[in-house]
Amino acid sequence: MEERTVVILGVTGSIGRQTLDVIEHEKGFRLVGISFHRNVDFAKKVVEKFGVTNVVVTSEVSVDLPGIRIWRGVEGLRGMLEELKPDITVIAISGFDALEAVLIAIENSKRVCLANKESLVCGGFLVKEKLAKHNTELIPVDSEHNALFQLMEEDVERVILTASGGALRDWDLAELPKAKPEDVLRHPVWNMGNRITVDSATMVNKAFEVLEAMELFGLPFEKIEVKIHREGLVHGMLVLPDGNVKVLLSKADMRIPISYALSYPNRMRLKDAVVELSGRSLVLSFEDPDPKRYPAFFLVGHIKHSYRDRIAYNAADEVAVEAFLKGKISFGCIHAIMEKTLERMTPFPEPQSLEEVKVLHELSKREAERVEEWLSSTSC
Amino acid sequence: MEERTVVILGVTGSIGRQTLDVIEHEKGFRLVGISFHRNVDFAKKVVEKFGVTNVVVTSEVSVDLPGIRIWRGVEGLRGMLEELKPDITVIAISGFDALEAVLIAIENSKRVCLANKESLVCGGFLVKEKLAKHNTELIPVDSEHNALFQLMEEDVERVILTASGGALRDWDLAELPKAKPEDVLRHPVWNMGNRITVDSATMVNKAFEVLEAMELFGLPFEKIEVKIHREGLVHGMLVLPDGNVKVLLSKADMRIPISYALSYPNRMRLKDAVVELSGRSLVLSFEDPDPKRYPAFFLVGHIKHSYRDRIAYNAADEVAVEAFLKGKISFGCIHAIMEKTLERMTPFPEPQSLEEVKVLHELSKREAERVEEWLSSTSC
Repeated sequence: MEERTVVILGVTGSIGRQTLDVIEHEKGFRLVGISFHRNVDFAKKVVEKFGVTNVVVTSEVSVDLPGIRIWRGVEGLRGMLEELKPDITVIAISGFDALEAVLIAIENSKRVCLANKESLVCGGFLVKEKLAKHNTELIPVDSEHNALFQLMEEDVERVILTASGGALRDWDLAELPKAKPEDVLRHPVWNMGNRITVDSATMVNKAFEVLEAMELFGLPFEKIEVKIHREGLVHGMLVLPDGNVKVLLSKADMRIPISYALSYPNRMRLKDAVVELSGRSLVLSFEDPDPKRYPAFFLVGHIKHSYRDRIAYNAADEVAVEAFLKGKISFGCIHAIMEKTLERMTPFPEPQSLEEVKVLHELSKREAERVEEWLSSTSC
Repeated sequence: MEERTVVILGVTGSIGRQTLDVIEHEKGFRLVGISFHRNVDFAKKVVEKFGVTNVVVTSEVSVDLPGIRIWRGVEGLRGMLEELKPDITVIAISGFDALEAVLIAIENSKRVCLANKESLVCGGFLVKEKLAKHNTELIPVDSEHNALFQLMEEDVERVILTASGGALRDWDLAELPKAKPEDVLRHPVWNMGNRITVDSATMVNKAFEVLEAMELFGLPFEKIEVKIHREGLVHGMLVLPDGNVKVLLSKADMRIPISYALSYPNRMRLKDAVVELSGRSLVLSFEDPDPKRYPAFFLVGHIKHSYRDRIAYNAADEVAVEAFLKGKISFGCIHAIMEKTLERMTPFPEPQSLEEVKVLHELSKREAERVEEWLSSTSC
């Protein structure tokens, strides 16, 4: 197989590092460019180890990398991708800011491997428009969507996204509002960043994933079911109209979906990745999420068809989770901030462009901050 | 979708009847021909209900069906299929005799849906030669192979065929040789014919299925694993080199694989077929079969690459199971008859043609009968 060039945006984060790990152990991929925000030391190591020649820095941090071409900011990102035209761009950036990077990557790559949720949640219409125009492949890296991507068929009765239920899944409901950041950050299955770990406990991450599945697979909301699956083995299921159910299971190891996103339609040979089945019983449990435990998740039914509302939902979550992690609000108030922010954004119209999406995001954040201040000074 | 013409060979058996059930409730299929052996009454009902105009009778039973074209025997079968040239022929005949029918069906149909094991086990090389020559599709109906067919990919680490373990799976090993036919015929999952139910208890049916999987998917023996799976929900699994595992599960309802074999690549909408997952725990257990409990199954490793041995294995099983059901030998002697028959067939060469396969089958049966007489008069 011909060698493929790869750019990793957000190389210093968890997905970025695991992508490096996959590329390092697999022939056929050459890392030609990276982007990072602040972690210069790690970026330097990557440059040396992989012989990367182009680096985008998205913060103002000073960089000393002789002989390496340094690009700055979003325009630098555009410049680098236009010049490199990589076979594959991996979007390992978290948060809303990835949206613009995704659009630029789609314009300039044959394949985009997407590990970012917010871009599809908030700007799905822009992403799909761009994909169609440039005939670029978009392969999901999220374990759930990667699983569904592996199983997908045309005629589907429903899909099942699995959720861990987060760190508080077994807490007494009455105790839940008082959960501390250190309680919430003990995720039962995956070791991830802080915001997404809190999003697991509220299942807001699963609301994002429902919306992503709508975008990625063109599925109506009604066909997407979420089940709490404690064992962390099943990542996605397809229920077919003839009664067959296709299930994808694997260890909870992000190298697996990353490798598939890179190598599709082929598969890599990953050491230690295969699940041992001999002589064991797999207990696979599937529970419906409880609206009392996960009120923020259940808001998804209200926002599913409006990008304005999705943007507000995401921005409010961003603000609320940050406030929670700083000890400013209680766990129970995350949902309240999101609900109130959604209400306050209803006067605004649906976005029609990237600019409008960005404006709505900023507006939503400001609204959410106001809501947070108000609530934390009263009930939170 | 255009209406497709269907012929069912062996219409009065369990698979034949369930195929009728599927066709009856689904638009797009027209039954144009059937074959049956002895059950005239049932065949008459089928003719009336489905407006069938061509019938093959494979026994000497007398048939009174005015206005219907009656064909007799294998040559009648050939004549009917040459005339009808159906889109789909369903092979619902059990036993070795199906092999010739399969070859004729391949010559005269666009698609053959195969529910017979012995044809691939004993004459796989003939079936594959014929398929290539006539460019006919062969779709497996067996739940296990149908499951694998739904999941199959090019690069597979291994496949897992599930087995119920049969009616005696929990018997004390010391009691096993004394099991009576009525004990063996209580199958824990499927309601099937007598021979195949005994074959489940010995797991000889699973040996057949391993050989079938080799033929159908071009898999080496080493990549096919058999696991006892008590819950009867998982029918096949694909372990992929990157650690992903694809699982197919469904209710134990043969209408499901039959419908898929008929409608592939599309899927029918089957009422009551969908497994309910909400709020339940699926316990999926996978055990390695015990060579002491299933010695006849473990003979598969010795016969895998020789059609002569496979023919002997099948013929000996046929003779042994019949003797067991008639009370002539103990359950524990089935394996002994198979092992001894295999030994006695070693002087014969590998078959090169249908004629030679048939000769070896007859020779093996006679050898097995002699072995059975000898063993039953001594130790069995």
